Amino acid sequence: MKAWFWHGARDLRLEETASRPLQRGEIRVAVAYCGICGSDLHEYADGPHSIPVTQPHPLSGRTAPLIIGHEFCGTVVEIAPDVTSIKPGARVTIEPEYRCGRCAHCLAGAYNLCVAMGFAGLMGDGGMAQEAVVPAYMAHELPDAVAFEQAAVAEPAAVALHAVRQSRLQAGDTCVIFGLGAIGQLLVMMARLQGAGKIIAVDVVPARLALARQLGAALALDARHEDVQAAVLAQTGGVGAPVSFEAAGSQATFDGALQVLRKGGEMVLVGLVPKVTLDSFDLVNRELRITSSVGYRDVYPDLLALIAAGKLDLSQVVTRTVALEQAVTDGFEAQLQSRDEIKILVQPQG
Amino acid sequence: MKAWFWHGARDLRLEETASRPLQRGEIRVAVAYCGICGSDLHEYADGPHSIPVTQPHPLSGRTAPLIIGHEFCGTVVEIAPDVTSIKPGARVTIEPEYRCGRCAHCLAGAYNLCVAMGFAGLMGDGGMAQEAVVPAYMAHELPDAVAFEQAAVAEPAAVALHAVRQSRLQAGDTCVIFGLGAIGQLLVMMARLQGAGKIIAVDVVPARLALARQLGAALALDARHEDVQAAVLAQTGGVGAPVSFEAAGSQATFDGALQVLRKGGEMVLVGLVPKVTLDSFDLVNRELRITSSVGYRDVYPDLLALIAAGKLDLSQVVTRTVALEQAVTDGFEAQLQSRDEIKILVQPQG
Repeated sequence: MKAWFWHGARDLRLEETASRPLQRGEIRVAVAYCGICGSDLHEYADGPHSIPVTQPHPLSGRTAPLIIGHEFCGTVVEIAPDVTSIKPGARVTIEPEYRCGRCAHCLAGAYNLCVAMGFAGLMGDGGMAQEAVVPAYMAHELPDAVAFEQAAVAEPAAVALHAVRQSRLQAGDTCVIFGLGAIGQLLVMMARLQGAGKIIAVDVVPARLALARQLGAALALDARHEDVQAAVLAQTGGVGAPVSFEAAGSQATFDGALQVLRKGGEMVLVGLVPKVTLDSFDLVNRELRITSSVGYRDVYPDLLALIAAGKLDLSQVVTRTVALEQAVTDGFEAQLQSRDEIKILVQPQG
Repeated sequence: MKAWFWHGARDLRLEETASRPLQRGEIRVAVAYCGICGSDLHEYADGPHSIPVTQPHPLSGRTAPLIIGHEFCGTVVEIAPDVTSIKPGARVTIEPEYRCGRCAHCLAGAYNLCVAMGFAGLMGDGGMAQEAVVPAYMAHELPDAVAFEQAAVAEPAAVALHAVRQSRLQAGDTCVIFGLGAIGQLLVMMARLQGAGKIIAVDVVPARLALARQLGAALALDARHEDVQAAVLAQTGGVGAPVSFEAAGSQATFDGALQVLRKGGEMVLVGLVPKVTLDSFDLVNRELRITSSVGYRDVYPDLLALIAAGKLDLSQVVTRTVALEQAVTDGFEAQLQSRDEIKILVQPQG
């Protein structure tokens, strides 16, 4: 079968590889779609960041080269003899977080905080391939009403749903979302589902702002030309927003997401930025909170039910679908070159 | 009557001043004790920081020179004709936060976040004097069982109680407290009351560490000689603490309070430090929270009830009591010169 192996920065190779035998607890999935994530782009552009190159990951046992791609869905084609949770033929989406099941965090149910936390497709073989082999615990069977085109976006949608659940966002609350890549757009959808009163979306790319408006943002602000803080104050009776989400990962958006808050408000940090300067004097004086969110836990069943019920149409964030062979030229490179691209799907069986 | 007026940095003056007539809603209190707070020390050492010198505070209408001191208690000696909430002769402690009563925060009950937030004794006349004039809403009548020696420390104790209530600290949780000035010591007491499983206190002053042990810290670590992170890991099965409190206000303690946390843990920021560098990548990857706490709201009645019930002995943090005339020489100067001093009370009626 064919798979995209990460060998190094700017070095993804489509290789023909033998299907390896399943080990205990594993399943084989014929991949329908695999999305390209921002972290995949980082690994491609200037990695390794999360991909292990010297020390094998404790749960996958793998180092590079490995098969990239952690946003995938497909059909189960084989199960190891001990697997009882899923059957061949099942349509599944993959929740790609590894978990040891034995650390304090796993035992407390917070498996996204597992001491050996990692993702299939970054710390072990993933799904940008015709077939993927993963632990059976990662598979969620799709309701009939959930098409693969929806399930392909379940992983970033799970990130957004977990972030909203980490927050104190309540019905009627104004919320401000900084950064309208895939996660930011999905945050708009999730905030709307959680009953946000007024969603204010902020970015610097017109196409992204337009999409956020379609997805439910009452106001989409271009930070290059508009005074975001003044606009938020004008929308909130001069008080500020109770909740903001930072999904861009820069000092400017970090600062902005704190500035738009009302006293007592909460910023939810989803974006990754190495170091920031924090005005902690202001933080204390306005009694602000910073909540952070990593990955997801316990959200897939509810997420799939929301899609099945027609309350979420995740395909709205997909801007392009490409064949497996074109994943680098029309996928990775296209997304690096255009900020209009939100979510690109790779289709191995096309 | 005599009062200590702040005129500028290193310029506190004990002046004889006429008792001014009460305005609507005001009461006059014969001050029994007035504590010296860290913020008073800052105003004395190199102020102004919070004291208004050009623009009058919107609620007090005052600029410097003004009477310093916001941690005080005493006996009501006069009330304005419209005051019905308290009677002359009542023993009271003062909750010195101004509140406008009309802004979005006051209307939501979060009066510590009032848009015109300030403290009598910093943004208006306070209590380091024989008498103090304050709005009646600031007065809490003392239960008979609460002596002035306890009530004098109610204000910083309210800061600590509010901070613990802002946190997610639950019975059995290990917590780590950085900085063992008055607020840190009172945090030890409050964390103990809230059922903390193991309280680990951190400072660099032996006398403070000894006091924290007396007040209930299971472990008191001298950060100059001990590896705090390693010690916390050793005490928590290698996982880290679910909650830490930062009550020192430095980059080193800010970093330390994050480092000791388990994944998913919460740092409560009580100390004031202008700017810090935050490793936001680590924050997100470990899904940490930063909660901040300013002043207090709705804690005085419960606090006084705890003292009356014998569950809190706030006098344990008092290291010295001085006469009004000696407030600068034996109070401010003594505390600036010795980090062994925790809480110094000034006694105007002595």
